[in-house]
Amino acid sequence: MMYSNIKVIAFDADDTLWVNETYFRDAENEFAKLLNDYETENKIHQELFKKEIENLKIYGYGVKGFMLSMIESALELSNNQIETNLINKIIDIGKDMLEKPIELLNGVEEVLQKLHGKYKLIVATKGDLLDQERKLERSGILKYFHHVEVMSEKKVPDYQKLIGHLDIHPSELLMIGNSLKSDVLPLIELGASAVHIPFHTTWAHEEVNEKQALNKDFKTLSSIDEILEFL
Amino acid sequence: MMYSNIKVIAFDADDTLWVNETYFRDAENEFAKLLNDYETENKIHQELFKKEIENLKIYGYGVKGFMLSMIESALELSNNQIETNLINKIIDIGKDMLEKPIELLNGVEEVLQKLHGKYKLIVATKGDLLDQERKLERSGILKYFHHVEVMSEKKVPDYQKLIGHLDIHPSELLMIGNSLKSDVLPLIELGASAVHIPFHTTWAHEEVNEKQALNKDFKTLSSIDEILEFL
Repeated sequence: MMYSNIKVIAFDADDTLWVNETYFRDAENEFAKLLNDYETENKIHQELFKKEIENLKIYGYGVKGFMLSMIESALELSNNQIETNLINKIIDIGKDMLEKPIELLNGVEEVLQKLHGKYKLIVATKGDLLDQERKLERSGILKYFHHVEVMSEKKVPDYQKLIGHLDIHPSELLMIGNSLKSDVLPLIELGASAVHIPFHTTWAHEEVNEKQALNKDFKTLSSIDEILEFL
Repeated sequence: MMYSNIKVIAFDADDTLWVNETYFRDAENEFAKLLNDYETENKIHQELFKKEIENLKIYGYGVKGFMLSMIESALELSNNQIETNLINKIIDIGKDMLEKPIELLNGVEEVLQKLHGKYKLIVATKGDLLDQERKLERSGILKYFHHVEVMSEKKVPDYQKLIGHLDIHPSELLMIGNSLKSDVLPLIELGASAVHIPFHTTWAHEEVNEKQALNKDFKTLSSIDEILEFL
């Protein structure tokens, strides 16, 4: 695989630049503990996941939609019998998530320093714009990026829009991310390049059948700094 | 004022392309009615507004943050005594807002048709990306725009970022919008152009002292199609 054509490198944010999914897992566990008078924790996890997926088309990705889904699930799981004080606690779980410190993943800052100036670097992320911008500012790495692209979805048409917006040819784009489904496969389909850097935790909604990735032309790295060997 | 330099025209979305603030006012009135066992409607309006402003820095703009602010206000105004069923009703108010039909303002489609191809047209909006994209798609006017810029704020540094991202000189940007505070004054300060088209309803947070706009170099139009006389 040759990267000589590349002009723009797009980085996924959550679980590619910094830890994120871990905080969602922790929040789900806290939520399940809050409600364990009403249901088993297993059932609570299942119902919350269903509610999130059901709401995705209306709320999109990000913490605010997750908070609303927790509240809706709590009302349903308790047949509207939930103590109102628990709703305050659910809101606190969400607000805590929005104020978590940023934990950059290994090698991120080094990679950005070395690539900055040689390529147009952008962030291409789902989620809430304000939340992602705030994370970038707090992380100290905002200065390396030309701008942030917030995408409502990361499917083929969304990347087509992104490429149109950047006014480049697909072969000039390299995407780096932790999700095969969102950061890799749609790019390959469009004739762009992609590098997969798995994170130890993947949201069930992002999982793909490994077979879909067979024979597709992309690299998998175990750490982001390995990309420097190819660029 | 000459617009011969303009390359990019940015349109605010809510209350510039379509009706929006009216739906927020309706939602606030419904919310106040739901809670009128606990407080006077006047007090409920005041507390909800305070809560929205308090939460703005963490939730940003848009319906999801508004829904969370309604829930938090309802808990506080009732001293946590609110019937849980009312929380469901608050969530329904928000979901209804997200599914409202799009009512384009007069002249919008004609203006876009005429300017399309002559300028790069973009949407520059605060709010939730998914919600704004969905409104654009439903409205049938998505095809006229190069892309949508969702901004977490609309202050001078945010427009500086936008101009950097567009790789243009400030004098090549014309912004059209209904808010003096968000769509006009920061642009003038940066040396860009701006056109103000007031909407009959303005959210209190967007109001500026009229004096701030005195002697500033921008046009005020009563309807968007008047812009065609100058472009």
